[in-house]
Amino acid sequence: MSKETNKPRAVVLVSGGLDSATVLAIAKSEGYDCFALSFDYGQRSISELEAAERVTDLIGVVEHKTVHLGLGEIGGSALTEDCIDVPTGGVQADTIPVTYVPARNTVFLSLALGWAEVLGAQDIFIGVNAVDYSGYPDCRPEFIEQFEKLAAVATKAGVEGNPWHIHTPLIKLSKAEIISRGMGLGVDFAQTISCYDADIKGRACGVCDSCRLRAEGFSAAGISDPTVYI
Amino acid sequence: MSKETNKPRAVVLVSGGLDSATVLAIAKSEGYDCFALSFDYGQRSISELEAAERVTDLIGVVEHKTVHLGLGEIGGSALTEDCIDVPTGGVQADTIPVTYVPARNTVFLSLALGWAEVLGAQDIFIGVNAVDYSGYPDCRPEFIEQFEKLAAVATKAGVEGNPWHIHTPLIKLSKAEIISRGMGLGVDFAQTISCYDADIKGRACGVCDSCRLRAEGFSAAGISDPTVYI
Repeated sequence: MSKETNKPRAVVLVSGGLDSATVLAIAKSEGYDCFALSFDYGQRSISELEAAERVTDLIGVVEHKTVHLGLGEIGGSALTEDCIDVPTGGVQADTIPVTYVPARNTVFLSLALGWAEVLGAQDIFIGVNAVDYSGYPDCRPEFIEQFEKLAAVATKAGVEGNPWHIHTPLIKLSKAEIISRGMGLGVDFAQTISCYDADIKGRACGVCDSCRLRAEGFSAAGISDPTVYI
Repeated sequence: MSKETNKPRAVVLVSGGLDSATVLAIAKSEGYDCFALSFDYGQRSISELEAAERVTDLIGVVEHKTVHLGLGEIGGSALTEDCIDVPTGGVQADTIPVTYVPARNTVFLSLALGWAEVLGAQDIFIGVNAVDYSGYPDCRPEFIEQFEKLAAVATKAGVEGNPWHIHTPLIKLSKAEIISRGMGLGVDFAQTISCYDADIKGRACGVCDSCRLRAEGFSAAGISDPTVYI
């Protein structure tokens, strides 16, 4: 944990993955007091939440909250349902992957908005990326712009004329560029988990789409992959 | 529970209160197969959830889900925090009441959107009302219009060109008009709970703003108030 200063506050969504760790480091480098928000939503890989704890400790946040959220009760995705296999066949640009959790980023940003309002923060950081996962509708710039407009009418702060900013510093970066950016800010990627199917010790499967994308990213960035595989 | 038919599906947000019971009856009367969604979000009045169960049983839904949601972990409202007194002094038109839960309807609609997407439904019903609670930013028509636009870019169905409809049949009705409408559709209001501070048996306090508004509504509608008070 870091002590709070007089800097502006920001809520940062932190999943425990490589992307959100980089986003948290960026938010800090831009001079925000960071309040990290994670969700326990019945994801198959609980080691993600342990990684979120490590990442927020290492990078330093004023507070880290993990909110319980029954997304699994609604179902519909390989990331929350036991009966859908996680994909290993590669990402196709024109289709929405089965790992898409319906309305997930809408739900996550809504809760971030609620906490930001309580904190008096007007800035939210989220590690969405439109390049590697172009199939997820809620990772696109048009979704983020629309959410900012919603926040303006949905909240007390918005109604009072304070503008909301949803920061998406990774939205146009490739995985290799994200890794380079994070390395430049001193992120220890060995502490992060991207795998859809990590084991109980947090070791990555090495074969799911997320593992493949991550490994290719390290390779393209010319950085040795610190991931611990099964 | 009712059996599913070939009618279009709708997700209906049901809190156990008078308003959402009326909305559910309206959705049914308009020919939808109804899927009711409630939230266990650390509200002080747990008897609301028991009322939601009774109401969905009586009116008849294909399925009723209660999703766990850690809104209380984010805090900031008299409805989820033990240390804020519920107001009894009357609603003022120009201020946002302390019972406002930050971003609550944004969060509720987001989860309804996720479930609707899983169900293949394009219709969501919510009992927001801009007349009696004009102080809540997320009960206004401009908020609902903006959420519809967000849904269009946030979801697989939206991207594929299927329009979303957020139905707010109560948005311009007074409490008396809502009560008359519900009575006309056969809603048993004795089974609903509106009180911010009901006791463990589900009896209403009779003094909080929500109780006062409800009692005035029955009086204005010329209908005897079936509420059980402490």
